[in-house]
Amino acid sequence: MINYDVIVVGGGPGGYVAAIRAAKEGKKTALVEKDFLGGTCLNRGCIPSKTLLKHAEIIEQIEKAQNWGIETGEMTFDFTKMIARKDDVIKTLRAGIKGLLQAGKIDLFEGTGTILPNKTVTIDEDKTITAKNIIIATGSRPFIPPIVGMDNVSYHTTDTIFDIKQIPKKIVIVGGGVIGVEFANIFASLNTEVTIIELGDRIIPTEDEAASKTLLKSLKQKGIKVLLHHHVHEIHEVDQQKSIHVVNKNEQSKIIEADELLIAVGRRPNTDAFEQLQLTMNGQFVRVNEFLETSEKGIFAVGDIIGNLQLAHVASSEGLVAAQNLDKPSVKMNYEVIPRCIYTTPQIASVGQTEEQLKKNGIPYKAHVFQFSTNGMALATGETDGFSKVLIDTKYGEILGVVMVGAHVTEMISQSSAYMFLEGTIDELANMVQPHPSLSEALMESANNLIGKGIHTI
Amino acid sequence: MINYDVIVVGGGPGGYVAAIRAAKEGKKTALVEKDFLGGTCLNRGCIPSKTLLKHAEIIEQIEKAQNWGIETGEMTFDFTKMIARKDDVIKTLRAGIKGLLQAGKIDLFEGTGTILPNKTVTIDEDKTITAKNIIIATGSRPFIPPIVGMDNVSYHTTDTIFDIKQIPKKIVIVGGGVIGVEFANIFASLNTEVTIIELGDRIIPTEDEAASKTLLKSLKQKGIKVLLHHHVHEIHEVDQQKSIHVVNKNEQSKIIEADELLIAVGRRPNTDAFEQLQLTMNGQFVRVNEFLETSEKGIFAVGDIIGNLQLAHVASSEGLVAAQNLDKPSVKMNYEVIPRCIYTTPQIASVGQTEEQLKKNGIPYKAHVFQFSTNGMALATGETDGFSKVLIDTKYGEILGVVMVGAHVTEMISQSSAYMFLEGTIDELANMVQPHPSLSEALMESANNLIGKGIHTI
Repeated sequence: MINYDVIVVGGGPGGYVAAIRAAKEGKKTALVEKDFLGGTCLNRGCIPSKTLLKHAEIIEQIEKAQNWGIETGEMTFDFTKMIARKDDVIKTLRAGIKGLLQAGKIDLFEGTGTILPNKTVTIDEDKTITAKNIIIATGSRPFIPPIVGMDNVSYHTTDTIFDIKQIPKKIVIVGGGVIGVEFANIFASLNTEVTIIELGDRIIPTEDEAASKTLLKSLKQKGIKVLLHHHVHEIHEVDQQKSIHVVNKNEQSKIIEADELLIAVGRRPNTDAFEQLQLTMNGQFVRVNEFLETSEKGIFAVGDIIGNLQLAHVASSEGLVAAQNLDKPSVKMNYEVIPRCIYTTPQIASVGQTEEQLKKNGIPYKAHVFQFSTNGMALATGETDGFSKVLIDTKYGEILGVVMVGAHVTEMISQSSAYMFLEGTIDELANMVQPHPSLSEALMESANNLIGKGIHTI
Repeated sequence: MINYDVIVVGGGPGGYVAAIRAAKEGKKTALVEKDFLGGTCLNRGCIPSKTLLKHAEIIEQIEKAQNWGIETGEMTFDFTKMIARKDDVIKTLRAGIKGLLQAGKIDLFEGTGTILPNKTVTIDEDKTITAKNIIIATGSRPFIPPIVGMDNVSYHTTDTIFDIKQIPKKIVIVGGGVIGVEFANIFASLNTEVTIIELGDRIIPTEDEAASKTLLKSLKQKGIKVLLHHHVHEIHEVDQQKSIHVVNKNEQSKIIEADELLIAVGRRPNTDAFEQLQLTMNGQFVRVNEFLETSEKGIFAVGDIIGNLQLAHVASSEGLVAAQNLDKPSVKMNYEVIPRCIYTTPQIASVGQTEEQLKKNGIPYKAHVFQFSTNGMALATGETDGFSKVLIDTKYGEILGVVMVGAHVTEMISQSSAYMFLEGTIDELANMVQPHPSLSEALMESANNLIGKGIHTI
């Protein structure tokens, strides 16, 4: 039985990053993965969706460019090629992780890990390893809501949707959260008739309300139907055609036909691997302290299994923290500056508190919104949809939150993260030089406006 | 004769921004512009070039997407539509500036301003206004080198190239600086045969050497010919066909034929408007102190006329500084954190010192380069060309410079600006969470590597 300093169970963005960092800290490290390295994010999440969303972006640009003097004949899609590119990207990145593990001299165990008491892990019940520390990074899986008829219907989750063989004619997406809107964008660009069913009063309900409205408008312009205040009552399937019976808040019902159905209503933590431990839970999630240690000393947990924001970069960040705390918990996980991104067209990116949260928490704030429609770069690139909103504390001018809707904003949000992380003030943001022309200038404009000296805002 | 608090001469990004800010500071303000509001940047520079570069980007993406399963018929160009879109963008932004001036109650004088002693300005010699302060923002114009035959040849500068009526078959671009490479990118995408003639040993000579090499490789892949170490000896024109006689450093000569010729070898300051003043000069530029005041008390100067980096955002920033110094010089212009952007595909963006400057200045530094070819977002979007390089001080881990080559980097550089402006350290950059997937992660990787804890770097 091999003895390690640390065994990481789960090779997703939380687990593999924790393993590499632990090895860099000088630990003899094992990583156990039952499926593919990279976890949900690389294999069935962030990466394949961004690959297909890039296709969507290009398709939308080709359509737009016809009016700009860039004329093409009829556009046709070779879905097999699209999926093949997606698979290539995944394989390249998986191989990259494998190479990094080898370079870090981390032992990779490919099989289902089960954590037993006394810090022992069995792999596929035929191999047993042990360690001083364990990091649980088992992630999550799609949640399937209890809908009448579900058992007799072939539906997709993000676990399977990336492997469909042809472009659907009609798809119903249950759930108007981040995953739902990203897939709606992907399929609409492929000329699929898309309907989103959302229980709440708006899509992407945890994000800024104006951002949600801007995205809704954009989805509708792409021909996507969005049914708010609707839930799925019952589902039937005949000859692979699904009939989705939906009901609105006034108890009015209708039936939507579709050839594909995607369920995207949230995720549930994977707890199987450690059910023999008596870890203290926090609802369905594993409870950890600020050092990411569970109720059992020496056992840490990171990623979707501990809840919080279920984002890959949060998991990786938690992995780094846990890996530094193995001998002596000393590094605290900081959730204050975590960016949140949605990769639709337009994109949405935010950091810090939303205006709704500030209101709810009774925090006095000032806000400024800059519409990209008056920004030089947005006009030059024809990407005028969207805005940026800067929220500051009324007393010290501290930046409390930023949300941006528009092109490339997922690459732009880190400037605001930097201001929050380094505790820069609104005066500093107002005085820092941004490149011209750039969408980034919007932040400078908002900052100048918030100190009463706006140039391109009246 | 109307008396103002301040007269700004020149309505480009230095002048109009100075005027608006002065008005916000409570000054009765006049702005004099002899041509179009927005100056070179809006009318013959940044904005029209970015509009056409967006076309180039889309054209390149359409070509690339053929291999991804997004297939189009033959692409054709309607150059008239392209130019019309460019003109629309310019008109929209010009109207925007006019609206901002009106909102700020700034008097706009459309005509040629001449600054006389005693802080008096005549407009087209038929109107005279006076003020307590004057801000000179007269900008620059393309420099025409003395080449034999030049007088008998129809050539373009950036003043005229945006108004050509048809796509050239062959173009020679003299000068491999920022303007030269951007236009090479624009014309190559339109299937023009492009040759760049550059005197020095590399294109974009003031930027990072590796960035220059990466761009050179990309230009060559687009079929652009780049002649380094070459100068133009003589030019002839017969039936609108130009023969450009070039000579290399070994005195070997050849003749390149072209139907268009673009001269892009730098710019000269416009000094006509104030030649009756006895301002102290700094070579060809107006000398100013750190408050941007000229040798004559109460007369300030901003933008290309004072030299430094001839960039629109530097001019605007100087305009803001000058406008705050009218009564009592107190705000110093800070040139330490100025981003520099090139909008080719791939883009190049940088801030702070280059590696070459650090070497030359004998500053001890550490560098880390992260290639985008191993970044998840770059792979997902097929934008793997490029890298980011972070340069830090060996003693305190202060960030001294960053250069990025790749997609969207002109919108990403401001994160590095923020770190430099707010004096964040490499440890802070290593610990700040970046969105996944994003190209921005490259900076976090470099930072972790520089502190010996790289995750995705071996």
